[in-house]
Order: sequence, then C-alpha cells, then structure tokens
Amino acid sequence: MAERSAERITIVGSGLAGALMACYLARAGHAVDLYEKRPDPRGHEQVRGRSINLALSVRGIHALHEVEVADEVLRHAIPMPGRMIHPLHGRPYFQPYGKDPSHAIHSVSRSDLNVALIEAAARSPRVRLFFEQRCGDIDLRTATLDLQAGSNSDRQRIPCEVVIGADGAFSAVRAQMQKHERFNYRQDYETHGYKELHIPPGAEGAFQMEKHALHIWPRRSFMLIALPNNDGSFTCTLFAPFEGANSFTQLQNAEEVRRFFTTQFPDVVPLMPTLVEDFFTNPTGPLVTIRCNPWHVADRVVLLGDACHAVVPFLGQGMNAAFEDCSILARLLQEHSTDREAAFRAYEQARKEHVDTLADLAILNFLEMRDHVGSRWFVLKKKAEILLHRVLGSWYVPLYTLISFTRTPYADALRQAQHQQRRVRLVLGLGLLLLVVLLRMLVPWT
Amino acid sequence: MAERSAERITIVGSGLAGALMACYLARAGHAVDLYEKRPDPRGHEQVRGRSINLALSVRGIHALHEVEVADEVLRHAIPMPGRMIHPLHGRPYFQPYGKDPSHAIHSVSRSDLNVALIEAAARSPRVRLFFEQRCGDIDLRTATLDLQAGSNSDRQRIPCEVVIGADGAFSAVRAQMQKHERFNYRQDYETHGYKELHIPPGAEGAFQMEKHALHIWPRRSFMLIALPNNDGSFTCTLFAPFEGANSFTQLQNAEEVRRFFTTQFPDVVPLMPTLVEDFFTNPTGPLVTIRCNPWHVADRVVLLGDACHAVVPFLGQGMNAAFEDCSILARLLQEHSTDREAAFRAYEQARKEHVDTLADLAILNFLEMRDHVGSRWFVLKKKAEILLHRVLGSWYVPLYTLISFTRTPYADALRQAQHQQRRVRLVLGLGLLLLVVLLRMLVPWT
Repeated sequence: MAERSAERITIVGSGLAGALMACYLARAGHAVDLYEKRPDPRGHEQVRGRSINLALSVRGIHALHEVEVADEVLRHAIPMPGRMIHPLHGRPYFQPYGKDPSHAIHSVSRSDLNVALIEAAARSPRVRLFFEQRCGDIDLRTATLDLQAGSNSDRQRIPCEVVIGADGAFSAVRAQMQKHERFNYRQDYETHGYKELHIPPGAEGAFQMEKHALHIWPRRSFMLIALPNNDGSFTCTLFAPFEGANSFTQLQNAEEVRRFFTTQFPDVVPLMPTLVEDFFTNPTGPLVTIRCNPWHVADRVVLLGDACHAVVPFLGQGMNAAFEDCSILARLLQEHSTDREAAFRAYEQARKEHVDTLADLAILNFLEMRDHVGSRWFVLKKKAEILLHRVLGSWYVPLYTLISFTRTPYADALRQAQHQQRRVRLVLGLGLLLLVVLLRMLVPWT
Repeated sequence: MAERSAERITIVGSGLAGALMACYLARAGHAVDLYEKRPDPRGHEQVRGRSINLALSVRGIHALHEVEVADEVLRHAIPMPGRMIHPLHGRPYFQPYGKDPSHAIHSVSRSDLNVALIEAAARSPRVRLFFEQRCGDIDLRTATLDLQAGSNSDRQRIPCEVVIGADGAFSAVRAQMQKHERFNYRQDYETHGYKELHIPPGAEGAFQMEKHALHIWPRRSFMLIALPNNDGSFTCTLFAPFEGANSFTQLQNAEEVRRFFTTQFPDVVPLMPTLVEDFFTNPTGPLVTIRCNPWHVADRVVLLGDACHAVVPFLGQGMNAAFEDCSILARLLQEHSTDREAAFRAYEQARKEHVDTLADLAILNFLEMRDHVGSRWFVLKKKAEILLHRVLGSWYVPLYTLISFTRTPYADALRQAQHQQRRVRLVLGLGLLLLVVLLRMLVPWT
C-alpha cells in the first residue's frame, strides 16, 4: 500500500464531494486512493430504513452529468417545483420556485447518492477504496497521512503525492492546516440548532402530504421543514433556538414536546406517530458556517467542499457548491497539468469569492424562510418577481432562480440581482413621475 | 497541591494579563494559583541584555494604579509625547500626539513590567506561583488542568474551582473551548510580518536618536519603527509583506538586507552595527487578529486579554486592553460575588463590542502609519485635529487621543469621533454657504 505512482492522488473522505472528485480524477486518467473513516456504505440497509435527504439543483446536476451519474441519480429523485407553506391558521398553499414546473429542486437521499457516487468511482480500475481508515494526522510538508484502521490502535504512515481533503466541516486535514502559521480561519455558529424528525408513509406507501413540494411551517423565530422520500415518507427538520423562547432547552419532556407541536404545527402531529421518541433519540445539531484560506499547502494538499466552506443549509446549496468545486478543480488540474500549485491557486481564486457570498446568502435565506415566507408581503413579492421574470425573461431573473436554476457563480448572481433591483426601482420611479405629469396635464390645477 | 479552598482561583499564564489579574484577585481576598509554562523571570538577565518594549497608555496606567504598581513602573518608563517621522528624503520631524506633552505614551520593557507584576502578585501571601508548568489540556466541565512540569513528561491533573485563561494569542485554554460545539472563533493573519532589530546605546549610554519619541520610517507598503529603552538603546521593528515587492522573501542574504536598508532607511544603517546578524537571527513573526465568543464556560472557565482578543500592535493597545479586562473582570467578580457566571457574562458583555472595535481600528492604524503618516495631507490633518481640540476642548477630541489618553470605551470613542467628524463637516459646509452668501451680497452680479 505504501508504493504509489507519481500520478496517484489521495482523497481523504468518501462523502459526497470526495466520491465525486474520485470520479472526475479517474476519468481524467489519475490513479486515486480514497480513504474513509466510516464503513463501506454499499450493500448496507439504511439506518432504521430512513433517509436524510438533500435538495439537488442545477449546479449539482451539471457535475453529476459530467461524470455520467446524473441520469441514475435523478431517476430516484423527487422534483420539488415549489414550497408548500403551512400557516398556523388556514390551509396550506403552494408557492412555485420559478416560472414553470421545470424550475424544480430535487429531493435525494444522501446515503443513496453517496452509494451511487462510490459505485461510480469503484467502476474505474484506477480507483482504490479504503474504508474504516481514520486520518489521525497529516504531515503537510511531505503529504504523509497518519491512518488508524477501524478500532485498531495501530497507525500506518502513508506517504502521498498529493492529498485532497474532502472530509467535511470538521475536517482533520484542515485541522492540521490550522496549526500552521498564517492560516486564516473562521467558524460561526448560529444561535439556532436543528433536529430531524420523521413522517412515515401512509397506507401502501402513500405520501401523506403533497409529494412534489418542500414543506415549510414558518413560525418566525423557529420553523419546521419536510422533504419527501421515495418510500412515501418525509424527513422533517425542526430549526429552533438553543435557548430562550420556543427553544430546545424548553422542550425537556414528552408533555412539553407534544404541547409545542400541537400548538405550533397542529396539522403535522397526526402524521408523526414517533414524534416524542424521535425528539429525544435524535441529537440536536448545530448550524455552522466555516470560512478559511488559503485552501492549499504548496502543490501537496488542497481542501474541497465543506472542509473549506461549510454553509448553513437554508439555500440547499452546500452539496451543490461542493460539486461545483469538484468540477472546477478537475478542470483546472487538467489545464495546469504541469503546475499543480498553479491549479490549486486558480481553483481557490475561482471559488473563494463565490462560496463566501453563498455563506452570507444562506444565512439571509434562513431569516427569509423563518420570518417572511408566510407573510402576505413576501407572497406578493415572490409573485411579482416570477411575473417580471416571465415578462422580461433574462432581463429579470429572481435571485433564488439564479442560485438554484442557473450556474451563474454565486457572487455574480448576487450582483445581477442587486443590479436588477436598482433597475426595477428606477422604472417604478420613472413610472410614478410619468403618472404625476400625466395627471398634471389631465387635471388642471384650480 | 491538589487540595484547595472554595475561594481559590487558578490563572493559566503569568504574562502581563495573568500577573496583573493575580494582583487584582489577591487584593479582593481571593486565593490565587498562577501556572506558567516558562521559567520564573525574576532575577534573570534579559536575553542578550535587550528588551522588547511596549507602549503603555492611560488605560493600562489606570489598572496599574488600581493595584498600586503604576508609580514603580512609570519610574522606569520613557514618555513619548509624539512620533518622530523619518522621511526617505529630508530631515526627521516631530509630530505631537496631543495638545500638550502630558499626552504621552510610555515606552516600557515587557520583561521589566512582567517582573514588576509577578513581584507585586508574589507579595501577597494569597498568591502561589508555579513556573515551568505547561497546561497540556483542560477538562472544561470540571475545570481540571492537565499540567506537564518542565521537560518532564509526567502529567499532573489539578482540579480547580475556576480557571482564568490568560495564556495569550495561542491560548491552550481557548484551544479546548474551540473543540466545543458552538464556539465562535476567527483568526485573521495580515499579509505582513514583523522582525525585531536593535540600535545599541551610543557612548556612555547616550541615545543615538531623540529619546522622547516613537520613531517611524513610513514607506507605504512597509515601515520601520523604533521605541527607546532605558539603557539608551532602541528596539526597532520592521513591518513588511511576507511576499512580493519589498518583502521578507526578497531579503535572503546579507547583501540584499544591506542594500534594502541603505536604500530605504539610510539614516538608521550607521546606528545598527548588528543589522545583518539580527536580521537572520531573529524570527519573522506573523501579525494575527483573534476574535471569539463566548469567553467563558459556565462559571468555571473564562478568558482574558490576548487569549480572547489578540489585536495587531499598531495602536499600542493590546496590553492596555488586556489590563482593562483585568480591571473590569475584577470589579464584576466583586459585584456578582454570589453568581460567578453572571460576572463572566457581564464581563464579556462589557468588553466584546469594544475589543472588536479595537481590532478593526488597530488594522486601520497600520494603514495610517504605513501609508499616510508621512504625507503632507496627513500632517495637515493631524495639526488641524490638534488645533480643533485645543480650541474646542471636549467638543472635539481626536480619535487617537480618545484611544490613548482617555478611558472612553473603544467603540464609544469611535462613535464620538464619527459624530465629531460629521459636526465638523456640517460647520465647514455652513461656513462655505455663509461665505457664498456674503460674497453675493458684497459683489452684485453683473
């Protein structure tokens, strides 16, 4: 295992980004070693038959197309062309994401998608997979991994040519880079946390709510969302503050949980037979944004996805942005095939501004989903945006559309949206002025 | 050593903040244990007879007065009532900091000050000092320290009532807090680094440049500064980019260093006989800003000074701000004597906004010192500010004066300065308008 060719690339982490990167690199002719601390997920039943799901959109789909797994993944995905809003009082109503149903995000099972990507990587003879290998340490100067196999305490030192750290928000590779001088690093936690809950399928696998929608129960300081799974179930997530009013701290026993849900989400309680059990079994997770730079050490080590830019989940773009990383890093490694450090620099240059913007937008979208999504004004604004887009076409594209249904880099998308907003304000202002002038002409002053 | 009374407070780090905090706590009747990884600095010669110096100003002096060591410290301090600017061409000139010589910052030796504070702490029978004890780990839940004595690899576990982490920018106590969920943390490095250099005393301990000034050689993308020491020497610091034009990377041999200094700082080269030797012996240090929150864990562990808010050195406020921390934490521990967690919360509440502002201002002042301090416009602006202050008194106090010569909390100082600036602009605007009106009256249009 210690000998390797000059072209061999080592990836730490076989999660979504690591497995996809392995596909890209194998297709480009590289030999790839993939090390993962967890067991091989292939051929295993999902835990308790449930799945945690993610929203796949255009950026992610584009990358999956590039490595030819998109068709297979989309076959099992559930398109969600809009949000189903569940107000506290009144009936749920549908809010489309775009001007037509093709503007849909896709609910996919994280574990199914991961297995599909690992299987795609494993189909290449150039890819070697090593599971239950925890990366304990890494010598950044020599790109030597210190691996610990399973529960075994024996450690193995693996000298590598180049290491890609795709080991997530709590990256072990990044932790080593943090110890180096002049590594800029930032972790920001939200005051809110999240907890996953479950709506099982109805009789004969029937969906107990609208299948083709992302369900939201916006309640200002907290909210519940639900995404459909293929088996007729929904994965729900409660986002609430850790402390204070309507917080996780206030929900300490079955009675309090039942009362809170019955008061706040009355329509969902009958659909959640294991609510209380799930609430106390499932952990309360934190929401973190991670920013850092530089993303690489010389031409030896580079970070990918959550390892260098974890974002909060409220735009459904964490995975999609990580997949874009893979696409761009793979392309730049080919363009700079004789100078890997130049490729790493160009990759960070191409991505940093955009994922920084994404981090900010994801936090803003949390406020939008939580506070405004149910308000009359917000509903009107969304309708007006979609109408403008329908009438003006590419002259007016709502920001959410640019983010979820185009591959416009995130910061460019934000600039375009701000520019459009100024244009609309100008037109409205001029219209108002024209109206005043016309009135002045038609109605002479007395 | 393991048994302790309920009132015993443990401080990690006997640097400036830790030693001062020990003085405060002992005066308030607490028993204090102080652990320091370095050897006891008392009774030791300074390394190579040189001292690294710091600028002590009103905030720091106030704290030293509270523990009654100010007089002793100031006796050995050198007042600097202004900057001596050394332009590339032309003669050096003096720029006063304030409206009169009492507006001076004080050059003090870091090691002398530290020894004075440790001696002051040791004078109390309530204080126990333990040197060469490295804090390897800390159990935050139980406030148990894991200490390693000297080069000995034996570890000792010390259960504590409460731990104050005063162990600097690379705090071991904070490192443990970082591993906890929901700890917000940020480290930002400048693209510039620093290197200390030395101007020895002249014949019979004479100062070879003006004694009562902070000397600056501003050169836009880099600069040299020098502070006087009591023995007639000056400690110089070169601030320059790590990479690119005029960077440390470009100074690789004696010839390059000599040429760089002769070209850029011609007047100082004759005063630095050991320039080349110092340049290659002394390390190139990084400049880091550290922000984090929360600063405490329950009522058990709390951070102080650089450990929770390291700033770049360009306002000379890092130590002064740490001393303010000590004063405020000591006061709040007395005010909330029955609820230590409330004291910790109030302390962070009282300090966080202000040290965040300080961090930003210190970076801005770097730009000012480097880029503008030598420009005609800057000199005029400084003169105008001091004139306004002289004429208007407390109606117009320059920001630098508020920071260095008052105890106005940093963020309040910035707000006051911004408010004053608006007021001056308004007055100037009205004056201009009045002038136009007067001219209009005196010179009739033709």
